[in-house]
Amino acid sequence: MIIALSGGIGGAKLARGLYRVLPADELTVVVNTGDDFEHLGLHIAPDLDTLVYTLAGCNNPDTGWGRAGETWTFMRVLAGIGGESWFNLGDGDLALHVERTRRLRAGERLATFTEDVRRRFGVHARVLPMSDDPVRTLVATDAGVLAFQHYFVRERCVPRVTGFEFAGAGAARPCAEVLAALRDRSLEAVVLCPSNPFVSIDPILSVPGIRAALAGCAAPVVAVSPIVGGDAVKGPTAKMMRELGLPVRAAAVAARYADFIDGFVLDERDAEEAGGIAMPVSISDTLMRSDVDRERLAGAVLGFVRTLGATR
Amino acid sequence: MIIALSGGIGGAKLARGLYRVLPADELTVVVNTGDDFEHLGLHIAPDLDTLVYTLAGCNNPDTGWGRAGETWTFMRVLAGIGGESWFNLGDGDLALHVERTRRLRAGERLATFTEDVRRRFGVHARVLPMSDDPVRTLVATDAGVLAFQHYFVRERCVPRVTGFEFAGAGAARPCAEVLAALRDRSLEAVVLCPSNPFVSIDPILSVPGIRAALAGCAAPVVAVSPIVGGDAVKGPTAKMMRELGLPVRAAAVAARYADFIDGFVLDERDAEEAGGIAMPVSISDTLMRSDVDRERLAGAVLGFVRTLGATR
Repeated sequence: MIIALSGGIGGAKLARGLYRVLPADELTVVVNTGDDFEHLGLHIAPDLDTLVYTLAGCNNPDTGWGRAGETWTFMRVLAGIGGESWFNLGDGDLALHVERTRRLRAGERLATFTEDVRRRFGVHARVLPMSDDPVRTLVATDAGVLAFQHYFVRERCVPRVTGFEFAGAGAARPCAEVLAALRDRSLEAVVLCPSNPFVSIDPILSVPGIRAALAGCAAPVVAVSPIVGGDAVKGPTAKMMRELGLPVRAAAVAARYADFIDGFVLDERDAEEAGGIAMPVSISDTLMRSDVDRERLAGAVLGFVRTLGATR
Repeated sequence: MIIALSGGIGGAKLARGLYRVLPADELTVVVNTGDDFEHLGLHIAPDLDTLVYTLAGCNNPDTGWGRAGETWTFMRVLAGIGGESWFNLGDGDLALHVERTRRLRAGERLATFTEDVRRRFGVHARVLPMSDDPVRTLVATDAGVLAFQHYFVRERCVPRVTGFEFAGAGAARPCAEVLAALRDRSLEAVVLCPSNPFVSIDPILSVPGIRAALAGCAAPVVAVSPIVGGDAVKGPTAKMMRELGLPVRAAAVAARYADFIDGFVLDERDAEEAGGIAMPVSISDTLMRSDVDRERLAGAVLGFVRTLGATR
């Protein structure tokens, strides 16, 4: 069994690679829910849905989020009656939000709903939220403290970042299946996907018990760099690092995880950083433009993990 | 000012005729909300939406309900994840349900929301719910007591009807604007559209104060027969009359309203019933297949009303 920790788009690409190279039912993806928010009275869970769509192969490859072949009638009419239209929701995507909202209100766990949905989509990997409890990423900026989607979508990441908060994290319990998976004897490795360290991985680590479980885990834990050639592939990772006064370098990401990871996968464009990373490093082409790329990187990560497993 | 009382499809046709022949802002439609229900966690108001769509001219003429040019992605995906799919909701239609649910939860009145939406659709007639409070039509049948939409949509009106209840009616207050309109000195007439007497007009009359306000109204009140040629044009009116042991005749409908109406519009196919109706009767072709038909009937009803106004 392999566990992958992932945010949305970038992380989902490697999760898909792992999904395609591993036997059925041998992958568990633990997903950031710090991006979740209540919008239009609905519980929106962007990263969970991105994972399900990406693993099922029905994601929209152009936008990176949402479904392929989507229609947009709902948003058009909503805007026409004066509803909030800054967060775009496709008609098919909306089915998950409406049904999730209804079932959570009826007392169902977010994990149960998500597991049901990924099965309905024919996905043979577990897709688990980091917690069933609400944890909400807040971005402290020069324009004030913004809810994550307000920062990310409405303000298009323009405000200058000064820090992050994960509201609710203190009281949140980790998803029971996540802790159990981290303790399972059949666990071979934990892979941190190349997701944003601040707003994708850190929210997962903010849930009490998860960071300690990773540090105490019997299997090797490796992270794949979200920095490629001294920049982020997509999204605000590099901008955030600059604004926080960090060097935009893979080594700075590795250092953030140093207390619980056993190895780091560096992009070949950043190979010169290897000497500055105080742990085993594997060098790969980490750009994933196609499923072939995703499978190749997944294979390389699994190969790297096996060399570490022998030494832990 | 003319007030029309209406259920969904059949009533909306005459409401549209009145809307097209009257000057702007001189029509108020009071709409049945006994069909409303909570479904998928959303507040669905089928008759209110049918009125807005029909007056705006964006209704679906093939189904009689919903919007023209609708897409159906939401329902397809919802069914795929195991959601309830017996009540069909179009993607654009859903925008009204989601926004209505959100705004009612935030404390807005149903009347305020509906008035805002009809304005956004460019409709120059007031569209008012009979009440802001929940009144729910229950259909007593040989298969048990069914919520209206369960009887109407899920069971396709197959169970044999034994009676009706309007849950919540006892505690419901009439919409303030409806009572005010009925008392307004500029009121010229009240028209009961050719809607189902049992499940469209009776729920409106069940709201405390409305029947008395109609009976005490200074302007003439007329009803247009929902029975044409001894049958209903569409829907379960005739089936319900048979199952309740009533003759399927226009006169039986007129008798139900005898305590508060001043005149009755009979279809020309039922002209021989005129003698059995103890009030002024106007005979018209009441079938409405086109806007020309709707305007013609609306004109005839308004002409009839003027003859009554002189005598009341």
